Amino acid sequence: MHRPDRVSLREVAPRDGLQNEPPVPTADKVRLIDALARTGLARIETVSFVHPGAVPQMADADEVWRSVERHPGIHYSALAPNLKGVHRALEAGFNAVEVVVSASDTHNRANVGRSTDDSLTELRDIVQLAHEHLAGVEAIIATSFGCPFEGDVDPARVAGIVDRAAEAGADRVAFGDTTGMATPRRVTDLLDAVETDLPMLMHFHDTRGTALANLLTAMDRGVTEFDASVGGLGGCPFAPGATGNVATEAVVHMLHDMGVETGVDLEALLEVAGLAQDIMGRELESGLLRAGPRTRLTQRP
Amino acid sequence: MHRPDRVSLREVAPRDGLQNEPPVPTADKVRLIDALARTGLARIETVSFVHPGAVPQMADADEVWRSVERHPGIHYSALAPNLKGVHRALEAGFNAVEVVVSASDTHNRANVGRSTDDSLTELRDIVQLAHEHLAGVEAIIATSFGCPFEGDVDPARVAGIVDRAAEAGADRVAFGDTTGMATPRRVTDLLDAVETDLPMLMHFHDTRGTALANLLTAMDRGVTEFDASVGGLGGCPFAPGATGNVATEAVVHMLHDMGVETGVDLEALLEVAGLAQDIMGRELESGLLRAGPRTRLTQRP
Repeated sequence: MHRPDRVSLREVAPRDGLQNEPPVPTADKVRLIDALARTGLARIETVSFVHPGAVPQMADADEVWRSVERHPGIHYSALAPNLKGVHRALEAGFNAVEVVVSASDTHNRANVGRSTDDSLTELRDIVQLAHEHLAGVEAIIATSFGCPFEGDVDPARVAGIVDRAAEAGADRVAFGDTTGMATPRRVTDLLDAVETDLPMLMHFHDTRGTALANLLTAMDRGVTEFDASVGGLGGCPFAPGATGNVATEAVVHMLHDMGVETGVDLEALLEVAGLAQDIMGRELESGLLRAGPRTRLTQRP
Repeated sequence: MHRPDRVSLREVAPRDGLQNEPPVPTADKVRLIDALARTGLARIETVSFVHPGAVPQMADADEVWRSVERHPGIHYSALAPNLKGVHRALEAGFNAVEVVVSASDTHNRANVGRSTDDSLTELRDIVQLAHEHLAGVEAIIATSFGCPFEGDVDPARVAGIVDRAAEAGADRVAFGDTTGMATPRRVTDLLDAVETDLPMLMHFHDTRGTALANLLTAMDRGVTEFDASVGGLGGCPFAPGATGNVATEAVVHMLHDMGVETGVDLEALLEVAGLAQDIMGRELESGLLRAGPRTRLTQRP
């Protein structure tokens, strides 16, 4: 047990969340990002530079990024599916880009139309370009805990991709539980297999209720960086049946009660979850938003 | 770490679930219990003997119990709020009864109209009566991890109630996370405080997303008995805002993937969750019912 005193959360609702929701006006995206920036979150994934034909929800990425407040001390990042997207992100001024590669070949083809190997080959060029612009690159390994098409993914394959990403010069790696197939066992197996000096982040979905159990397991193995999405916004468009990034407020709520610091103001975050709900115009899948934190008491009968 | 190879689940949907849902016809209750009995579950909480004015959903307890198949090897139990209810349960032929007492005085008063101390005093008479009928008694300690009215509950108080229950002759104790206020920290604190030779069971709600993280924490501390409710049926009528017993299928799904045996056939259980959904006539809050188990693959694109 190496349970840390503090973990770092990256908020992904503006990108990963909204990319998988009906389109939202640019002004609402900016409002959401700026509100998140005032909650104490250290990192925010803001937009992705993808082809607007493939992901119309992100067609206004440049405009969103031009319009948000830039809070010093907050690490803003953008996602890109390929070299062209990374180019756009760097031109827009990002100094942190994320590139997705799937551990499952079938999922990688469904996601970006080529093999995992081809994506990894391009990663070298992406890193070179980014580093020339003094930007860091995170390799996000999707379907790290299982693939909706192929089933179980061999942790050794994930470990091999980590090695390839490190060889390509990536600065960080992230493990995506793309369709909520992770369980504590899969987290343990992956961490047993992966050996790297790169900073590691884990991205869990609560599709099958295991997100916080997985996070706990990873934390007890020393992982200190996690993705989460306010209000539980988002899913995965190429993985049918997948619903639900773990809600940021649920993560913060559990960790704070355990004495694990996140730097996030839970009450402020819950207000942003309410804002996200207003923007989407429907009740979000956030138990904490419905029930309130455990400290919010009911009047005595 | 003492992670067990096997845990025992008690299914509580027929009682705890349906008690907190709109009334359901007797025949549907019987159908649900009989279907659950064929999934491999070892224990089923079937009905409660409460005043029909207080809980009209359980007014047909006798008829339900007369009508269900009695599978040998399945441990059927009934809940009762007081001596009178226990009398009815024993007359109906139950050889296992559960009696609820709240760790929080305010919640106990809201639940059964008297102090925790008064409930504990009556427990002695209940145990004597039950034992005369060769029936076992489980003391369920509600609000063990927090009270919606009082807030945090001192684990030492819970430990004291366990001692009182043991002195009264109870055969088992259960800890109820009545409104989903448990976190891994609260589970650990409680297990640090309680010292008993009685078999212990834990009952978690997924109100704030922590149910499986709590279960994992308890399991790693040696707890091997848990409640769960198929389809996530039920909540707590006296604790506003509370939604969601942890779904039995979510527990079984995670444990089996971890190599922890439950004896339950997950596919059969998911069919019963579908039956529960049909009976209720609305979509239940079960991620696993929506997304299917992680082994159910999507056709390749």
